[in-house]
Amino acid sequence: MYPDTFEFKPKPFGDYDIDIKITCCGVCGSDLHTVTGGWGNKNYPIIPGHEIIGTAVKVGPKVTTVKVGDRVGVGAQISACLDCTQCKEDNETYCKKQQDTYNSFYPDGTFAHGGYSSHIRALEHFTFPIPDGLESELAAPMLCAGLTAYSPLVRNGVGPGKKVGIVGIGGIGHFGVLFAKALGAEVWAISRGTSKKADALAMGADGFLATQDKDWNVPHEMTFDMLLCTASADDGFDLSAYLSLLKVHGKFISVGLPEGEGWKVRPMALLANGCLIGAAHLGSRKETLEMLQLAADKGIKSWVEKIPVGEKGVSEALTRLHNNDVKYRFTLVDYDKQFQ
Amino acid sequence: MYPDTFEFKPKPFGDYDIDIKITCCGVCGSDLHTVTGGWGNKNYPIIPGHEIIGTAVKVGPKVTTVKVGDRVGVGAQISACLDCTQCKEDNETYCKKQQDTYNSFYPDGTFAHGGYSSHIRALEHFTFPIPDGLESELAAPMLCAGLTAYSPLVRNGVGPGKKVGIVGIGGIGHFGVLFAKALGAEVWAISRGTSKKADALAMGADGFLATQDKDWNVPHEMTFDMLLCTASADDGFDLSAYLSLLKVHGKFISVGLPEGEGWKVRPMALLANGCLIGAAHLGSRKETLEMLQLAADKGIKSWVEKIPVGEKGVSEALTRLHNNDVKYRFTLVDYDKQFQ
Repeated sequence: MYPDTFEFKPKPFGDYDIDIKITCCGVCGSDLHTVTGGWGNKNYPIIPGHEIIGTAVKVGPKVTTVKVGDRVGVGAQISACLDCTQCKEDNETYCKKQQDTYNSFYPDGTFAHGGYSSHIRALEHFTFPIPDGLESELAAPMLCAGLTAYSPLVRNGVGPGKKVGIVGIGGIGHFGVLFAKALGAEVWAISRGTSKKADALAMGADGFLATQDKDWNVPHEMTFDMLLCTASADDGFDLSAYLSLLKVHGKFISVGLPEGEGWKVRPMALLANGCLIGAAHLGSRKETLEMLQLAADKGIKSWVEKIPVGEKGVSEALTRLHNNDVKYRFTLVDYDKQFQ
Repeated sequence: MYPDTFEFKPKPFGDYDIDIKITCCGVCGSDLHTVTGGWGNKNYPIIPGHEIIGTAVKVGPKVTTVKVGDRVGVGAQISACLDCTQCKEDNETYCKKQQDTYNSFYPDGTFAHGGYSSHIRALEHFTFPIPDGLESELAAPMLCAGLTAYSPLVRNGVGPGKKVGIVGIGGIGHFGVLFAKALGAEVWAISRGTSKKADALAMGADGFLATQDKDWNVPHEMTFDMLLCTASADDGFDLSAYLSLLKVHGKFISVGLPEGEGWKVRPMALLANGCLIGAAHLGSRKETLEMLQLAADKGIKSWVEKIPVGEKGVSEALTRLHNNDVKYRFTLVDYDKQFQ
């Protein structure tokens, strides 16, 4: 058994660091995968949480973009070398030294903890000022789930005149619909059954496809520019039906991370439209700032249920997440009550 | 047993048709897959051959780009609707009505035969004037193998400043090296062993990697813009090692067509660089004409062994192709002797 709460020592404070007093934190599927060991992690005790909003309470001498008292956010990445080709091309998420916000070790050996906590120490590059007009509890889940949807959409040219499918209407998928619509595309929600149809249309989807329907894909063959796949199940996943939806050289980009064996791909199945299959990992600082500004400008509202942080709330959130009983994201709140 | 030769009736002559007296024809891996039934075809007797060069002997009244007496070529596609979105965007190879040059049926029911024959009747759109300065026997294999390599290279931006890997140095792969070099890229040949190293360097490769070497990929991780995979084997094919070579959002494009089960792809394996896996099918008329002009302008020489057409020659060519005993392409010649 581990203690319900414990104290930990953050990494040494550096010139580019910011200490943040946390006010709320989103609950991500990664948190569940991590604490249940589904991704093979074993560094318990772990404090999860990488959709963090809080107030800067201490700012390193070389920090220029944040001052004490500012409202800031931290997402799923906490460090990178910031010097390699990837980092210099706004691909810090693909830096070979990229470090996850929690359940990871800093070069000095300090173990990094996440946002189910009173405070976090974060590098300026991975600390994002939150625009006015964005409610903290709605901004929090954008920092991982939101960015995970937003980045591949913009990197693949989603905008006016494009037809985009969002596969899987869960935490990430609901952001896929919200952001693809805000970017001006024609958006189709693609789900197994019809239980999420009304929600998806309310989020702004222009159309809805249920893959349990026979020949669901046929009327839309070769009409989609891109599919963003947020489904993390791979059992019975008929990849070829999805690929048939794509225009010539259209892209199927997965941001779901099945724990299982993966997909079987026959090159022959890619030949009808010369489509591409890929995956994307988070997004850059630049994209995070653009996404938050877009959300503020367009008044994008994450669909969030608020749950008080603490033993009971975290347990409830993770249990309900495990049971897919969430529409569509949890944000842990009431940090001032838990951490006095 | 089928006759060694037989007469067949071509489709009715249309306003946009061209009758071609064939002078030579390349021998393609597809011919072998087809006649052995590896791709499941059973419409015997089949006359294969889709790397055809000949002389226009009859030209339909609406044809404007070819006149009687012109030297022309026909590749692996003989028809398409020429009216759909794909056709209008130079993607006629992805037209839903795309028709292979041989072993296919025209809408009127006529069975189409290929270039191991005295003549072929072809639609103007799929009949290409051959630039002066290109030797017919060397131009022939460009019409399928060459285009199969050239089109994905240009569609994926291969040119100066790009680093490209050609996986598999066979008939298509040797064109991959020749064309990628001609387009100005840094070209690496990637082969199982070292037996083709000297040839690949002679074709213009800047470097050579043998995948039998331990950690062959490690020094080149995240440095390639694109990999063109021409290998048609999938046994023991460790896709992840290849993918590790790619820069962020780099592309692995397959033009090999394994007869087997295909690849296993874990989305997780695509996450280190956000790379994309795709396949490509031939290329457009526009690209064919550009490729032939590039070959003429740069003096690109296909590595071709000439074999006389006829029962003995075809048998020798297909048998040696089956045994991978070809460097790097066969062209059937001496049509005037066989077809008198």
